[in-house]
Amino acid sequence: MSSEPPVPTSASEQVTDESSKPLSKKAAKKVAAKEEKQRRRQDDVAAAASSLSIEEDDPLAVNYGDVPLSDLQSKEEPDLSLRLPVGELRQELKDKVVQIRGRVQTTRAVGKNMAFVVVREKGFTVQCVVTAQPEVVSRQMVKFVAGLNRESIITAEGFISVPSVAIKAATQQVEVQVRKLYCVNKALANLPINIEDAARSEIEIEEALKAGEQAVRVNQDTRLNFRVLDMRTPANQGIFRIQCQVSNVFRQFLLSEGFVEIHTPKLIGGSSEGGSAVFKLDYKGQPACLAQSPQLHKQMAICGDFGRVFEIGPVFRAEDSYTHRHLCEFTGLDVEMEIEKHYSEVMDVVDRLFVTIFDTLNDKCKKELEAVGRQYPFEPLKYLRKTLRIRFEEGVQILKDAGVEIDPKGDLNTESERKLGQLVLEKYGTEFYILHRYPLAVRPFYTMPCYDDPEYSNSFDVFIRGEEIISGAQRVHDADFLTERAKQCGIDISTISTYIDSFRYGAPPHGGFGVGLERVVMLFCGLNNIRKTSLFPRDPRRIAP
Amino acid sequence: MSSEPPVPTSASEQVTDESSKPLSKKAAKKVAAKEEKQRRRQDDVAAAASSLSIEEDDPLAVNYGDVPLSDLQSKEEPDLSLRLPVGELRQELKDKVVQIRGRVQTTRAVGKNMAFVVVREKGFTVQCVVTAQPEVVSRQMVKFVAGLNRESIITAEGFISVPSVAIKAATQQVEVQVRKLYCVNKALANLPINIEDAARSEIEIEEALKAGEQAVRVNQDTRLNFRVLDMRTPANQGIFRIQCQVSNVFRQFLLSEGFVEIHTPKLIGGSSEGGSAVFKLDYKGQPACLAQSPQLHKQMAICGDFGRVFEIGPVFRAEDSYTHRHLCEFTGLDVEMEIEKHYSEVMDVVDRLFVTIFDTLNDKCKKELEAVGRQYPFEPLKYLRKTLRIRFEEGVQILKDAGVEIDPKGDLNTESERKLGQLVLEKYGTEFYILHRYPLAVRPFYTMPCYDDPEYSNSFDVFIRGEEIISGAQRVHDADFLTERAKQCGIDISTISTYIDSFRYGAPPHGGFGVGLERVVMLFCGLNNIRKTSLFPRDPRRIAP
Repeated sequence: MSSEPPVPTSASEQVTDESSKPLSKKAAKKVAAKEEKQRRRQDDVAAAASSLSIEEDDPLAVNYGDVPLSDLQSKEEPDLSLRLPVGELRQELKDKVVQIRGRVQTTRAVGKNMAFVVVREKGFTVQCVVTAQPEVVSRQMVKFVAGLNRESIITAEGFISVPSVAIKAATQQVEVQVRKLYCVNKALANLPINIEDAARSEIEIEEALKAGEQAVRVNQDTRLNFRVLDMRTPANQGIFRIQCQVSNVFRQFLLSEGFVEIHTPKLIGGSSEGGSAVFKLDYKGQPACLAQSPQLHKQMAICGDFGRVFEIGPVFRAEDSYTHRHLCEFTGLDVEMEIEKHYSEVMDVVDRLFVTIFDTLNDKCKKELEAVGRQYPFEPLKYLRKTLRIRFEEGVQILKDAGVEIDPKGDLNTESERKLGQLVLEKYGTEFYILHRYPLAVRPFYTMPCYDDPEYSNSFDVFIRGEEIISGAQRVHDADFLTERAKQCGIDISTISTYIDSFRYGAPPHGGFGVGLERVVMLFCGLNNIRKTSLFPRDPRRIAP
Repeated sequence: MSSEPPVPTSASEQVTDESSKPLSKKAAKKVAAKEEKQRRRQDDVAAAASSLSIEEDDPLAVNYGDVPLSDLQSKEEPDLSLRLPVGELRQELKDKVVQIRGRVQTTRAVGKNMAFVVVREKGFTVQCVVTAQPEVVSRQMVKFVAGLNRESIITAEGFISVPSVAIKAATQQVEVQVRKLYCVNKALANLPINIEDAARSEIEIEEALKAGEQAVRVNQDTRLNFRVLDMRTPANQGIFRIQCQVSNVFRQFLLSEGFVEIHTPKLIGGSSEGGSAVFKLDYKGQPACLAQSPQLHKQMAICGDFGRVFEIGPVFRAEDSYTHRHLCEFTGLDVEMEIEKHYSEVMDVVDRLFVTIFDTLNDKCKKELEAVGRQYPFEPLKYLRKTLRIRFEEGVQILKDAGVEIDPKGDLNTESERKLGQLVLEKYGTEFYILHRYPLAVRPFYTMPCYDDPEYSNSFDVFIRGEEIISGAQRVHDADFLTERAKQCGIDISTISTYIDSFRYGAPPHGGFGVGLERVVMLFCGLNNIRKTSLFPRDPRRIAP
């Protein structure tokens, strides 16, 4: 038998569509048919595999085999005295007996007396060697190990040896000389995605193709359809650990500066703040919708004397955007704070917060950033110790000087934002900067106009690598003025009366900002699609898995 | 003029309904009418106040007055060189000039030459004294200060003095001898709720009534209708700071043990896990619903090799529960982890995690707990260093021994849970314990049955003060067995095929648990209603503010 599972049908095709354009019905049908075909083929392979039963007369049968489910139903407390994480297996452990648990990455038989199995755990891999020897390892055991399906979960026990030549197949430079090996949970013989295919970089694919070799490219939609497998690639393990670190630094920084974490409702009556489309639903007979942001409630928390608040939670946008940077549901990092009198106080927080986030990622997520970079090469983000601030008018001028036509009182489109990012990088050497004092007309009704020019506002956007990640502003804290502004913007006052009334009970001047967590990770890592930084992305055509 | 604003109409009534029963239509109409009446009255008071214009010929007019809005529109960067938080005003600062900002808690005029204003900031209060004196404070300024509306935001500048007698009206034992005072934002003259009414304990109300005095009791619904004001009470400031601390310890503890924070989608196709009612919505033409828990997705993250994950996020339940402990939207703290073979590994995490949370609250939230206790007296939670674990069967026996009739293979109802809590407290001296090995029939389909008795399961609930706060279990990680269990529970397999398929690609044994953040805070503080621990609660009849 071959220890190499055949390349699955669905992934073996050279699919080049990395974009997320909606599949046509025909294409969707084709994919479904292919998946069905593959499923049938898997069943065949599984049936063939089960016929390879282990000989029953093996006196060493106790040293290997499938763990029965009943042994995993909390029958007894685990004995982990020999257990070590794969990542901790080093040369100093030579001759020590250890136990490991992980996934079968690959298996390889060498004749009938020897098999290799590379075991992966948390991104680390180690080569395990199973050699037939009297009293310990039978030929049947070698056969069992060589026949393990990839991605199955196994435990292995053996002593550590140090080979004389460097190991290419694994991250750890030691081997485990196996004496016991059990399969805890068997994976399908034929997986819809092979992890090594999903982990391959574009460069590797190009090189393989040039060399006339086959190299599977797994497209974005296939990855997302089988996200549970896709998540296992080193790049994805890195991406979501980086994401976790971003939230963590965000929170720890803000908590250290006296902010209080709050949780505002996602179910709200009426539409949350106008503008983009909302998801509507029936709430016990009342019309309701999903919050497009915690904007109104976080401001109410400021009116409620919490002084400085933040929230990390889902926000919902029903927009029909099929771009590389829009999702229908994403994780919002929201901040709101009392200010004395100037929106620069808010920008100061943005500045220190993000420099802290970037510094921490570069310091504490080195391995994760490397793992992402191996598959998706990127240059480290260029940012200054003190974040650059440019007035909107100045930004417009920079664009004009470069020959870009632009409406000075309009918003920047994605293209001008990107161009401005390039120009700012050339001029100031940073890919992270704040653009402030936007035209009032392009900001929400609750944005405070400038004291000296009502056509501009006390607002800002923040950019990474030419793409917007943060929007912020001073808010209108005067109820009458807020009412006037809402009316000017064509908003039905009756739908936001509770919000406006909040400012009648004494409201401090305040401001805040909102960040998209997925965008921060995407742009810090120079990724090309926000679906790569959302665990289970939601876009206008995807609501599964 | 009187410096004491009249008691508002709506709150002056002795409303005793602290429960959350739905208001009848008639009662709701009555409340609306009362609010309208009060609004009109407020307008009258405001009109009267505005006629009290400050004399224009005051040469000291520069030292006081309303700050014009334009000065608060980011005109200039703030100068905070003299600024101190109210909570830091101490006797060592005697004769130093300081500037403070906060809300007007009360004002009191003493003749025409003197006024007192108590300023509140972040729960601390200080008495400010305004005395007419040549070159600094005019009689007009005294009048202006005495006429400030409660809850207005002001800044005041003056020197610190130390009075010879203890100050009862404020938390700080110094006074500010004011030389400048400006109103940053004016509150309505007549507020729907007075903060001191909302902050009054039941005991204080009873004592006042006994003494024949008037004491306003603000009912739960009025509080929630005007949550922005209600939030300002010391108890509520404490409650939500305690809530913030719970999330923070939860996360820090788990991060320190190698857990990764994830964000799973709230918008899902089909119903999330059956059981309780879901909120349905239309997702771009596809039927969808709001996740009742991150259960399936957090398990998929385990299958995706994240090893140990947690999430803090909203969960949605469309149940028609009007109890003191159910909400339609609450904050779920969810955990999922690989295990070796026993659900005790999960209970170990629960044990250490919650003992750490309780210890930290008792250590770091002393002031907040005191503030809550002053309004809602409670005994500190009794818990053991090593959390007590009782088998379900043992719990049933304890109840039986106490004469409580109970179905040994059924679930406990709220009443038996409470009774068992009392009995456990008497027997073991703890109000926090784990009840495990529940009957399989009362747990979700994905719960792993016991190895030795398929009528029981590897599951647990955790109780504080006789009420459930956590549900957890080992999960079925074998796809075929999971399918079988789902079918046995009458679940349509086609609706959860992606979930089940996740276990076909190699799945480690795993388990986890879910906690309701609001319940933890409610029960730790011995509060009687979960609406007190949700910033903007959602129940079957409330979707505002």
